[in-house]
Amino acid sequence: MASADNERMARMAELDIDPAQLEAYRQRLSEEIEASIALEPGVLMLHAVALKDEPGKIRILEVYASRRDYEAHLQTPHFLRYKNLTAGMIRSLTLVDVDPVAMCAQPATAS
Amino acid sequence: MASADNERMARMAELDIDPAQLEAYRQRLSEEIEASIALEPGVLMLHAVALKDEPGKIRILEVYASRRDYEAHLQTPHFLRYKNLTAGMIRSLTLVDVDPVAMCAQPATAS
Repeated sequence: MASADNERMARMAELDIDPAQLEAYRQRLSEEIEASIALEPGVLMLHAVALKDEPGKIRILEVYASRRDYEAHLQTPHFLRYKNLTAGMIRSLTLVDVDPVAMCAQPATAS
Repeated sequence: MASADNERMARMAELDIDPAQLEAYRQRLSEEIEASIALEPGVLMLHAVALKDEPGKIRILEVYASRRDYEAHLQTPHFLRYKNLTAGMIRSLTLVDVDPVAMCAQPATAS
């Protein structure tokens, strides 16, 4: 009965970053993630990691409280700034829709 | 200066599960994840998702406080039980070492 608008939305973003711009990209991504979690209660989780053997390959596990929260996220100044500043750094971007199976973490105690 | 034993350890596990046993696998995995987070403070995060278009493909983002915590985890009864019960369900398992770039989440408020 519930509208899909009210369902949690999860995704894995797979990015390939220009090695010459990797440090700048990581900085922009970190700023964007910190702002999103601080300012948007509907952005539940943004976990970005780099493959150890291929540091230009970034994976981001993204969880939003609803599709509406995700769509609002796309219009925020911090996200638009990130998109604009990193457009020339990203060689490829693949978005993979996922369903949570089990997501558990310790209560936040440290950065 | 710090020993690698004291550094946070992150990994992405990529699994392909036998479709005929997928429901049983998801149940065993969920039990294992919940027990690990409840019983092991050094297991910081276990986030398992399934690809929407290929539900047998499971991705698990794993973060441990240290390599020592990871090695201890492998010896716990709940992990050994999971390994034993799911051995015949897993078609392939790839472990990819990753480095955190930015990992942020809302304070836990709901399951």
